[in-house]
Amino acid sequence: MNEPLSTDPYKGVRDFYPEDWAQFDAILKKQRQVLRSWGYEEYQASPLEPAELYEKKTSEEIVSEQTYTFEDRGGRRVTLRPEMTPTLARMVAGKRRELPFPLRWFSIGNRFRYERPQRGRTREFYQTDVDLIGLPSGEADIEVVMIADQILKSFGATGNEYEVRINSRALLTKACDVSGLTPEATKTYLRLLDKKDKMPEADFAAKRAEITSSDPLALIESGDEQIRAEKDAVQVLVESLKARGVQSAVFSPTLTRGFDYYTGLTFEIFDINPENPRALLGGGRYDRLLELFGGDAIPAVGFAVGITTLTDFLTTHNLLPASAHAPQLYIGTPSPEDRAAAARFAQDLRLEGMRVSVNLTEKPLGDQIRDAVKRSIPFFVAYGAEEVSTGRVRLKALLTGEENELPATDVPEYVSAS
Amino acid sequence: MNEPLSTDPYKGVRDFYPEDWAQFDAILKKQRQVLRSWGYEEYQASPLEPAELYEKKTSEEIVSEQTYTFEDRGGRRVTLRPEMTPTLARMVAGKRRELPFPLRWFSIGNRFRYERPQRGRTREFYQTDVDLIGLPSGEADIEVVMIADQILKSFGATGNEYEVRINSRALLTKACDVSGLTPEATKTYLRLLDKKDKMPEADFAAKRAEITSSDPLALIESGDEQIRAEKDAVQVLVESLKARGVQSAVFSPTLTRGFDYYTGLTFEIFDINPENPRALLGGGRYDRLLELFGGDAIPAVGFAVGITTLTDFLTTHNLLPASAHAPQLYIGTPSPEDRAAAARFAQDLRLEGMRVSVNLTEKPLGDQIRDAVKRSIPFFVAYGAEEVSTGRVRLKALLTGEENELPATDVPEYVSAS
Repeated sequence: MNEPLSTDPYKGVRDFYPEDWAQFDAILKKQRQVLRSWGYEEYQASPLEPAELYEKKTSEEIVSEQTYTFEDRGGRRVTLRPEMTPTLARMVAGKRRELPFPLRWFSIGNRFRYERPQRGRTREFYQTDVDLIGLPSGEADIEVVMIADQILKSFGATGNEYEVRINSRALLTKACDVSGLTPEATKTYLRLLDKKDKMPEADFAAKRAEITSSDPLALIESGDEQIRAEKDAVQVLVESLKARGVQSAVFSPTLTRGFDYYTGLTFEIFDINPENPRALLGGGRYDRLLELFGGDAIPAVGFAVGITTLTDFLTTHNLLPASAHAPQLYIGTPSPEDRAAAARFAQDLRLEGMRVSVNLTEKPLGDQIRDAVKRSIPFFVAYGAEEVSTGRVRLKALLTGEENELPATDVPEYVSAS
Repeated sequence: MNEPLSTDPYKGVRDFYPEDWAQFDAILKKQRQVLRSWGYEEYQASPLEPAELYEKKTSEEIVSEQTYTFEDRGGRRVTLRPEMTPTLARMVAGKRRELPFPLRWFSIGNRFRYERPQRGRTREFYQTDVDLIGLPSGEADIEVVMIADQILKSFGATGNEYEVRINSRALLTKACDVSGLTPEATKTYLRLLDKKDKMPEADFAAKRAEITSSDPLALIESGDEQIRAEKDAVQVLVESLKARGVQSAVFSPTLTRGFDYYTGLTFEIFDINPENPRALLGGGRYDRLLELFGGDAIPAVGFAVGITTLTDFLTTHNLLPASAHAPQLYIGTPSPEDRAAAARFAQDLRLEGMRVSVNLTEKPLGDQIRDAVKRSIPFFVAYGAEEVSTGRVRLKALLTGEENELPATDVPEYVSAS
């Protein structure tokens, strides 16, 4: 005898059984609704990308320690995308002469990082990427942050559950420059700043002192004249957002976001519930990423939402949406010989738009009703020789136990009115 | 200067720009509608699977020559799924004690095979997998073939464009057994039979003679008594399908389908248009696959539709569905100062369920109208200080050129009625 195969998925990824996927899909559906209402259109690409795509601009930590990169049978180096922005940039650059700018695009799909599996960190994770490409900062930045805020509100969040943290990479870079940091030291400083909230104040100060004797953050806070223009721009943006309904927008000078390619706005939405203190989504402006593919720069701004993180947020705040695709009616068969008639009746109902499941087992009717209850199907009807001859059925509402006799042809209307 | 990065996708996969994806998604949407109307529920899994999953039952050619298999950073051998059935079997086996059988499940997603790229054969391809698990042959086989037929009909196909070819692996195996073939020779013979239609009659006969001196096909055609029960069962199935509306069902004794795990029914839907003579979908019964994971056998039947192949079919027969998610209204701004007011108006319309895109450029109105036309957005409205003060707008239908002045609050009703 052979050893039986394991039923475990590959380490660090998850299976979505129908119940799990229905929940997940309901969350994706709401996001798609919001994005389409803003005129955004969905694009897709393969998760397989040439490895070179990530080697210039994605964060060093991700590329050297966390990508899935391998050689294909033809000797090409392939990477499973760890994020979507490089793919987006590649696609836009590839058709820059034909595409009608500005582009309002989104994509929902899986991304891959080889990380130690832990709560909220799987090796495959789903993200929604939203990007507005071809417009400079100003109205475009406002639109993108508003959409992020709208996505949360579409689930019933009020804005009191989270902070919309706004910063500017341009401001940080300028402050570092004025403080005398080299571009290389600026990168190191930003990486340190990214971890500031997770370390004691004194540790941060000590590590900062290793990089620079002056303090870029103090410069920003004092509103030094040399960084005034950049600081004013962020503050104007925060005020505009508040005026447009993003009431939880705040200027957050320590916010960095991980990616090296940001050039202007950076932002994140942060869950302020002490039980789930995490960023739900984040993004920013990356006006120079498309230069990597040659040609002129194309300004761009966008963000990504992690679906697991969002699900955790919705769960914490009791805002999970209901799924809407489950079967509505279970047709039982008094005897196995009735299955063909039941299948025909089911087919008529499907043509009326109903979602109908037919019993194909040889179990007695009582078991069939229990089966329907177990599957949370709201209505049950037995259909056999008698129903064929009378044209009438007894429709049972399984939640209430209520039964109604009605013409078979009235079933769709009755069920959809319930 | 650095060499610019290439904008090409990884070799053998495709990018879906929004227009492409809208078409693709419209096709997926119709399939989901049909499947849900039969009470089928969607599941998903990661494309990363332990390599062992494919080594026992997927066809030898696929595993040894066509899988993407590599070692992860922890030394685990990982395969990008070349097909969905082993994943399905793994998931079902993993929760066999909790799941309410029969299961009606489907999954839509990408699969990966390292093949020479050519028309209709990409290294990443999308499939819809549909499976009914936990029921023996009979009504379950009929349901699954009917669904396959319904999927094509849901796009407006009439059944005259294709054949639903039905065969039985049980019949073929029995005929081979009666003809004296060993199980190994049977496998070789089935692989040859799979290619029969692509080679001259004489070549087939010669190659067949290398495997066996007797002819299993002749045995089937003559209706030999030793295979009579299996042959009758297929013929009864074909007649039942015809009686249930699958009028293009035919018994097709040379049909094999590639996978080793089939045990009973095998079927495919074949485009009979001479310009596209290909299988659109195929499947069968695999009652023993779940044994690989230990425990009792669980009977199962299912099929997979290739979305590219289906798209080719729909294109050939002029049945491509329209997409329904594009923006409905473009709000133009007479001057850049109007953008905030336009954004607010847009937001009101979105809350009414409209899909609205706002101009954020500084282009003159005429250019904005041309931009809306280029994007195929059906309605245009200019919105600025004047519209704010009067509460009225001029709504332009871009297809007809017709213009109407109406209260701003009437826009959603007017557009949705068009």
